[in-house]
Amino acid sequence: MVALAALSLAASVSLVSVAQATSQVPLEAVADQALEQDERAWDFVEGITTEVGPRQAGTEAEKRGRDWAVAWLEKHGFENVADEPFEMDTWVPGDLHKAQVISPFPQPLVVQPLGKSASTGPNGITAEVVKFDTHADLVAAPAGSLAGKIAYISHSMTPTQDGSQYGFAGPARWTGAGIAASKGAVATVIKSVGTDWHRNPHTGGTSFPEGVEPIPAGAFSLPDAANLERMFERAGGQPIMLKLTLTPKNLGTTTSGNVVGEIVGRDPSLPPVLVACHIDSWWNGTGAFDDGAGCGIVAAAALNVRDAGQPLRTIRVLMAGAEETGLWGSKAYSAAHIDEPIAVGLESDFGADRIWRFESNFRSSNSDLHAKLASAVARFGVSNGTAVATGGADINIARDQKTAIIDLQQDGTRYFDLHHTPDDTLDKIDKAQLRQNVAVWTQVVGILANEADPIQPPATEPSAPAIMEQ
Amino acid sequence: MVALAALSLAASVSLVSVAQATSQVPLEAVADQALEQDERAWDFVEGITTEVGPRQAGTEAEKRGRDWAVAWLEKHGFENVADEPFEMDTWVPGDLHKAQVISPFPQPLVVQPLGKSASTGPNGITAEVVKFDTHADLVAAPAGSLAGKIAYISHSMTPTQDGSQYGFAGPARWTGAGIAASKGAVATVIKSVGTDWHRNPHTGGTSFPEGVEPIPAGAFSLPDAANLERMFERAGGQPIMLKLTLTPKNLGTTTSGNVVGEIVGRDPSLPPVLVACHIDSWWNGTGAFDDGAGCGIVAAAALNVRDAGQPLRTIRVLMAGAEETGLWGSKAYSAAHIDEPIAVGLESDFGADRIWRFESNFRSSNSDLHAKLASAVARFGVSNGTAVATGGADINIARDQKTAIIDLQQDGTRYFDLHHTPDDTLDKIDKAQLRQNVAVWTQVVGILANEADPIQPPATEPSAPAIMEQ
Repeated sequence: MVALAALSLAASVSLVSVAQATSQVPLEAVADQALEQDERAWDFVEGITTEVGPRQAGTEAEKRGRDWAVAWLEKHGFENVADEPFEMDTWVPGDLHKAQVISPFPQPLVVQPLGKSASTGPNGITAEVVKFDTHADLVAAPAGSLAGKIAYISHSMTPTQDGSQYGFAGPARWTGAGIAASKGAVATVIKSVGTDWHRNPHTGGTSFPEGVEPIPAGAFSLPDAANLERMFERAGGQPIMLKLTLTPKNLGTTTSGNVVGEIVGRDPSLPPVLVACHIDSWWNGTGAFDDGAGCGIVAAAALNVRDAGQPLRTIRVLMAGAEETGLWGSKAYSAAHIDEPIAVGLESDFGADRIWRFESNFRSSNSDLHAKLASAVARFGVSNGTAVATGGADINIARDQKTAIIDLQQDGTRYFDLHHTPDDTLDKIDKAQLRQNVAVWTQVVGILANEADPIQPPATEPSAPAIMEQ
Repeated sequence: MVALAALSLAASVSLVSVAQATSQVPLEAVADQALEQDERAWDFVEGITTEVGPRQAGTEAEKRGRDWAVAWLEKHGFENVADEPFEMDTWVPGDLHKAQVISPFPQPLVVQPLGKSASTGPNGITAEVVKFDTHADLVAAPAGSLAGKIAYISHSMTPTQDGSQYGFAGPARWTGAGIAASKGAVATVIKSVGTDWHRNPHTGGTSFPEGVEPIPAGAFSLPDAANLERMFERAGGQPIMLKLTLTPKNLGTTTSGNVVGEIVGRDPSLPPVLVACHIDSWWNGTGAFDDGAGCGIVAAAALNVRDAGQPLRTIRVLMAGAEETGLWGSKAYSAAHIDEPIAVGLESDFGADRIWRFESNFRSSNSDLHAKLASAVARFGVSNGTAVATGGADINIARDQKTAIIDLQQDGTRYFDLHHTPDDTLDKIDKAQLRQNVAVWTQVVGILANEADPIQPPATEPSAPAIMEQ
């Protein structure tokens, strides 16, 4: 019993404390400890969602978020912490978000505007709804056929572990409003690009082609979209008249910023490891899954690597500003730092559920390192993927520099239940899965930051496609 | 193969058609068929949620709901269909429902007003929040101690199959605002009395004691309540200042009504079987679980019993008006019909999930009938409960007449995820479970409506307690 008690006591001594004393704790042990007891990632995402909340790109709320992140990084001993400013065009959602079926079945529907939506004005607009079951049906509609009408665009998205049905359903949001506008529509409403059945619509950016005047564009929650579709079935051909009131505004140019900080390596002349996330969120949620968790994960991993002893290479954390409304921060960071080579870029921006697959863009060009990384994360349930890593929205610089990229693919089954909705709140984060993320990141970033040889660019691999905002 | 095909064809012939031809289909067969293929309950709840939507008590929307229900009952061949009017005091939620933490962590919180809440006026009120972890803590607060403050009342409700934690957590909503007002509070906000983690607050009625002036009273969603509670942990003693804007209105006296219809029995002189539900809903959802489903279930069961042959007793369907804001319809029905004895009363008003327990208030006083009913529903997975049935909110008349009562207890595990929220929509209804409800109701109502002997009152049983609104 005494022996057991002593063992138990020994196990409870933090490896972090040991690390700070000796700087010689094995990376594997630090990662294993993160799996069991990391608190840093949680503290970051709890803190920013509680003390700041929503952080719409380019607004004073995002500024408070950046200030909060700067303070957190400084408190945790990051070096070279800064908020690097850039200019952007800023859109805000306004106060009125209403939809009302006027006839034949009068009732309110829950709607939220899409990013870049025009305003209906406070008095709203009323028009007949034309239903398109798919984006392809909208594309096929004749020119001019939507004059004076509101286009409604549906789709049939289901949850997928790899999130791939975002690409299947996403065009309804990404381009639907612009296509409808070009055919004369006075407004567009879509079935939310999401997979949950709560009355919390999924916002997100939309776009209008050059020369097409933006129109009001909103998203219904899935229950409201289903209700509207049932109305078409029950209306017996009577027109469905909808009053839509959305009052977003363009604020013109405002200043946003990229928050950066470093764990400085033993050889700062070596290209750094860039770990990224984004600090902004849509206005309607608190940005826990998207992307407070990602910032917590990458920052915690950087600190954990430091706990295992000062790394060879510098680890640079990039918490990009203004991702949601057009990758403003990612583009600005690349423009500002394009001449400072990075060794490798990786990003966390797909929630807080477990990582299940490791991918790189140097599987053949640096097969030893790829294999070493894949082997190191296998014990966390992460498989060795054959897809070519393309990186996320926040690491434009890695694509622009054509450098090494790693994707640590998270389980996306729940992601599109929460993405861009009011429901993106702290309670959705599963602490055990968040810790698995930190453990995997610690392991991967620790190996990368201690790699003496070049993590060579993917000269022999297919080039990564451009990434659009998430 | 020919024999099999013939069997398959025979199985697909509707028993309902046979019944209409012969009036001699066994009740059990009709109930079994309902389990597999009832469409009537679904048609009712789909229709009223799609073609009418929210039906706030005493408003024109509820009137459209009653008109819709009258038309549905007539279309399905009910007799003596009527909308029996009554007067009521009508409260409506108004347009502005906002809460904003002003300091130290400025951000919006999602709030909805409670029924009978006063208005803050369109400019809102700002005050410090005083947190009470439980209703008991609020009760214990000294007189006058809340002067100028906003009281926040929390609780720790969890899902329960029998719904019993509604009684545990409910006082935060039922009486919290009145208690806080009596101690000087300028407003009250509660953690929603609910069990889901979506940003859709649970409304519901609150009350103010005689002589206490109503104050504004709202409910936060659980994620928002948890966020506020974390702010208290992180504020280091700084006051949490909240701006609350709620603009409900009292419309004074308006007219509501009780929708009734009958399957007239072979001996109309016998006291009828009263099957009840309520037709109104809160403004924020479409009233699918609460209580469109209940009306669909009881109406479908009545029609199914008719399919098995004209019953001995009349089955009277009561779709009560204005339940949510004070059982106005239930009270009005009892007052109007107190001198017309009913044989037995039963109600469906707890969602659309499966029935798992049968209870009566005549287990000892008419043990043969109790046993017969319990035995008849056992094949649907319904157990024989020992609790004394007390009936639901809509059958005041059964309690006032001290007559027989049956409770067909539904599984409430999900009920308080949806109750009184925007998420109370058609998509939440599981068609298979809805059909199980119709099957059990068909079986029970069919036996009751063909019972020649008195379904005697519970002279020897404990009397049922008064019921408050749900």
